[in-house]
This record gives sequence, C-alpha cells and structure tokens, in this order.
Amino acid sequence: MNGNHVPQHGGNLYAAMRQAGSSCQELLDFSANINPLGLSESIRQSLSASLESIIHYPDAQAYALTQEISQYYHVNAKGITIGNGAVELMYILCHMLKPTKILVTAPTFSEYESAAKASGASIEYLQLNEADNFAIDIDKLASSLALVDIVFLCNPNNPTGTLLSSADIEKLLIAGQAHHTYVVVDESFIDFLTKDDVYTCRPMLERYPNLIILHSLTKFYAIPGLRLGFSLASEEVTKNLHLGKDPWNVNTLAQNAGVVALRDHVYQQKSKEYIKTANQDLYDSLQKIPGLKPYLPSVNFILINIKDTKMTSLQLRQAMASYHILIRDCSNYPGLSSDYIRIAVKTQAQNTLLLTTLRKIIGE
Amino acid sequence: MNGNHVPQHGGNLYAAMRQAGSSCQELLDFSANINPLGLSESIRQSLSASLESIIHYPDAQAYALTQEISQYYHVNAKGITIGNGAVELMYILCHMLKPTKILVTAPTFSEYESAAKASGASIEYLQLNEADNFAIDIDKLASSLALVDIVFLCNPNNPTGTLLSSADIEKLLIAGQAHHTYVVVDESFIDFLTKDDVYTCRPMLERYPNLIILHSLTKFYAIPGLRLGFSLASEEVTKNLHLGKDPWNVNTLAQNAGVVALRDHVYQQKSKEYIKTANQDLYDSLQKIPGLKPYLPSVNFILINIKDTKMTSLQLRQAMASYHILIRDCSNYPGLSSDYIRIAVKTQAQNTLLLTTLRKIIGE
Repeated sequence: MNGNHVPQHGGNLYAAMRQAGSSCQELLDFSANINPLGLSESIRQSLSASLESIIHYPDAQAYALTQEISQYYHVNAKGITIGNGAVELMYILCHMLKPTKILVTAPTFSEYESAAKASGASIEYLQLNEADNFAIDIDKLASSLALVDIVFLCNPNNPTGTLLSSADIEKLLIAGQAHHTYVVVDESFIDFLTKDDVYTCRPMLERYPNLIILHSLTKFYAIPGLRLGFSLASEEVTKNLHLGKDPWNVNTLAQNAGVVALRDHVYQQKSKEYIKTANQDLYDSLQKIPGLKPYLPSVNFILINIKDTKMTSLQLRQAMASYHILIRDCSNYPGLSSDYIRIAVKTQAQNTLLLTTLRKIIGE
Repeated sequence: MNGNHVPQHGGNLYAAMRQAGSSCQELLDFSANINPLGLSESIRQSLSASLESIIHYPDAQAYALTQEISQYYHVNAKGITIGNGAVELMYILCHMLKPTKILVTAPTFSEYESAAKASGASIEYLQLNEADNFAIDIDKLASSLALVDIVFLCNPNNPTGTLLSSADIEKLLIAGQAHHTYVVVDESFIDFLTKDDVYTCRPMLERYPNLIILHSLTKFYAIPGLRLGFSLASEEVTKNLHLGKDPWNVNTLAQNAGVVALRDHVYQQKSKEYIKTANQDLYDSLQKIPGLKPYLPSVNFILINIKDTKMTSLQLRQAMASYHILIRDCSNYPGLSSDYIRIAVKTQAQNTLLLTTLRKIIGE
C-alpha cells in the first residue's frame, strides 16, 4: 500500500471508511470544510455534458477558465496559474522559488509546511496565542521576515477562522519588499464571505510583485474530488510557475466546471447567505454546551476548545466516529494541543445531529 | 491569457479549435496518440456513477487503484506513485531528484526535457540517426552516463516507434548503477503491445534500485482529459516522490476509472488486436503514397518522412487542417526537421479519410 505520505487532514473519508468498514453514505463528514449546499446543478450538468470530451487532452492553456477567473475576480489574466487544486500550486511554488526558510503561523493549514519541506526549506513558526484567541500579530510577523524567503498566511486562517483586513496584510507586503520576501496569502475560504472587499489582497497585486495569492475553488463549489484552484501573482512569478508544472495539470472536467461555477451567481449568493446565518447559529448552540469553547467563526468552520469536557480530541473524535460522525482532531496542528477539534458548518439537519451527538457524548 | 507555457505537442485541440473557429466534433485529431476505440463502456459507467462523490476529497492513499495496479502489473504496491497523468510524475521526479544533467535521445517526447529544465538541469542529447531508422544504440547510451544523473528512455519511443527489449535496457541499468545514474523508462505506450513480456522493465524493478518506470493510463484507455498515470520505483525513491507531491493529486473520477479500466479485459484485448492489424494496414497504405516514407510502427502511431513531397511539415499540417484533420508537425522535436510528421492510428473509416486527404493534397 502506498501510504508513504498520508496527510493528517480532515476529509480523509476513504481511510475512515476502510477503518470503520462503512460506506460513503453512512459517514457524516464534519472534518472537511466543504460547502454544505453540495454540488450545484450547473456543475452537475457541465460534468454530464463534458464526459465524452475526456478522450481529448485538456486545454493546456486553460483558456476559457483563465478568462472567466480574470473577469470574475477582476485580475490580470497573465498573472493566473490554474492548479489541480490550490495545494498543487503550493508544491510548485516551493519547487520553483526554492526557499531556504519559510515562515508560517502556528496553527495554520499544514500543507504550506509540507510543500516547503519537499523543496528542502526549513520552517519557522510564529506561535499564535490561545489567550489572544489566536489573533495574528501582523507587526510581529512583519518584523520576522529578515531571514525568510516566503511567509504563508491563510486568510481566513484555517483552523482558527481569524480574518485579517487587506490593510493589515499590506504591512507584511511592505516589510516583505524590504527583505525580498514573498508573501503568499491563501484566500481559499474567502468566497464564503458575503463581501470580501475589505479582506482580499487581489487589488494589491499590481502594486506588490512579492504578493502571491492562492485560491481554492473546491471548497466553495464543493468539488474537492475534482480538484481545482488557482494562483495570482506577478507575470514573472507566473511564468516561473507555468514552467514548473505539467502543461495538462488541470483535467477537462474541472476546467469546464470552473467556468460554469463562476457564472452561477444564484448558487454563490445562496451559499454566502446560508453560511452567514448557519455559522452564527451553530456557534451559538455550541457555546451552550457545557465544556465547549467555540471560537467565533468567519466562514464555514469552527475551532472548538474541548478542554473542559476532560476528553482529548482523539477521544472525542473516536466517540463521534462510533455515531458515524467525523470531526477534525486538531492535535497534529503545530501550535495546537489535544484540547482542540474543528468542525465544518453543514446543513441545518446535519448541524442539529452534530449538536445532539456532542451533547450526548459530553453529558455521558 | 496564461499562455506562458504552451506546449508544442499533439492533441492541442482547444488551441486548434480557437484558431480555426471549429468545434470539437468537426476536427479529426490524428495528432494525439489516443486509443481509437475511445472511452470504454466500463469507464463511462464508472464516471456517471462517481459524479456525486466529487463533493468529498479524493482518497489521498489512492488505495483501491494502487492495489489494482499492483495486481494487474505484478509489481510491489510500495513502489507505486499515482500521478495526475504520467507527465506530472516527470516534473515531481525532477523536482525531487534535482538532477544537474540529464540525457535524452533526440528525438523523443519533449516533456522529459521540460521537466528537467524546470528543476534547473542541463540537457544532453544522444542524436538518433535517420540513416539507421532512428535505432537506439544502447551501448552508446550506456557509455554516456558518467556525468549524467538521469537518463530518460521512452520505450516504445515517441515519435519514432522504436522498441527495445528489456534485455537491451538492462545494459543501461548496469551502466547506470556504476555511475549512480537513474534510468527512467517511460512505458506509456507499452499497453498497446499484444504481449509486453520481452519489452517491459517491470520484472527488473527488484534488482535495480536505479530503475524508475513511468506509465500513462490515459493513452490506452482514452482518458487524457481525465489525467492518470503512475510510476514504479524503489521504495526509497517512491517515498521521496510522495513527499514531493500534493497528497490529493489524483482526482476521484480518475482513481475510480483506473480501477475499472484495469479490470476490463475485453476492452484491453479488443484494443490490442485492433491496433496490431490497423497499424500494419495504415503503414502499408502510407508506403504506397508517393513521397511518403513511413517508419515501421510498433504501437498506435506512425512517424513519416515527407521530404519527397517537397512540402514542409508545417505546410502539410496547414493543408490537412483546411480539411479539418490535425496531424503532428514534428519539426519542433530536437533531432527532427521539417521533413517529419506523426500520425495516430485511428478507426478504419478515419484512417481511410486520412489516406484519401493525404493523397489529394500530395497529388495536387
């Protein structure tokens, strides 16, 4: 079995199924942060209509999708690199920019670290403090760039939900320019915000050639199994990324799905509105469960401190799994302990089942 | 437009469509070497049945497909890395093994060179001679390894069709061991052979830790738009490749399609038998067209010297395009001139149309 690089992530559904002997339908996955509205009808139709086209190579220029991204996000098409998921681009970025040292917050998404290690870089952490609700001290981050080639910043941050304004991040870009440091801002969850103007760094791309934005399309459009993401960067960095990747890296179905997804304004609006209400409701309900300390969510996931339940994250994960519910045990995040779990915001009925099951287990 | 890395390959259908203002259905693509039997019913069914599963992350361990490859090809599962196409693995291989210099035959598939350049390596060519029908002198190749970190060998070779026995390639593996050189054998077209025992290097994997085999599943199973391939290597190299890639690099639909494809013995047999007859027939017919010198094919494509037609490969490509037929202009292959084109073996009716059109254009 090729289990040489088994990521300790949420959404490891197939491994969970093998472990439990369950089927996909039987498991309720709160461990992966995927849009609970599921596959849009427009994507479903695009997939069905595109099936026969897989006998041809994908468009190596990803022309239609590149144009669509350029229009939808108001960005220069020459700065776009389409990825087989945003994570592929993290690896290509590190392989091509060859950092000696990178800086990440702790906790944050672990693939920045894995990608950097793959390229031979060492990792420096800026520890976020529990006492400050894991707030990101941008001045401290900016003052740590002297010996760092790339700083990765996840905004909103996974798993804490911390959301920075682009004005704050600009301080980091300015410091980065002085130290020749690339600032990679991962905006993979930003589409879930009702309005992202104050938060996205996209308008700063023209001014800061050291800015690289990563953006996943798999979470908001519920297509993680299809793989789709992109990066936005200067034309120079973009050329480099294109040279470092397989020209056919994005399959035809994903390219076509991306085009229809960005045009589906009804799905987009419905998703944003649902998440806005549902994450607040779920947060309020979680707060009322004795022993749980949820952190205020910004998008479609919630970090929870479970210390007062006297259970470890592994114990709670296992207890929930016995009810066929998967949650994210956060103990393997650098900077988090076995006091933390993360859950996704799902449908009302699913959230209710989560709450009922949590109450039952914790009350036992 | 993100045309920073536009590969000069066959199968660039979408670029051709944009150029000609044509649709996918109107163009007959002889430039990409895809199984003319097209999508198997088993894969079509698997895709339709799998669509809903793309709301979950792919299996990061690619467990089912890895097991299936291990059984079908009689190889150690711990030496398998599944790729988003074999080409992805060329890039990951170069990013991770960081060669200073690589050796390739000229002509051969150009992505070895592109992947090596992406990792900063320099390229050395072993020029194959027209006068020898582009035969690969394995002793000469073996004697050139002293300063080379990786030698790439395509078997059967694209675009010449040259086929080496594994006994021949073993000489290269032995020389490679003496010089600490990895021998990468790309067997992406080997499934098209009726029997591959004499040719495949798979049985030598246990004995030669410097052997790496690449294998595409997109050509034989006609799924280039879905992307699927794998590599076979020592456990040590395999661990390294796994660390260098996105854990979710292979999408769920491709993983599922791969499993059913390898179980579809009827499609496999039918394809092998068809290609065996059809490539001989097409070769015979091409030989009878004045001015064309086809090279004896081993699998599903034929290299043709068109010098005596007094047309360049570009002129012939353009003339064929005016009849909505795409052929591969080989002038951008290192080691080939504008005297060469490559065509795929397609269905009987399509091959007949190709022949009629060639006769018409050349006779004009």
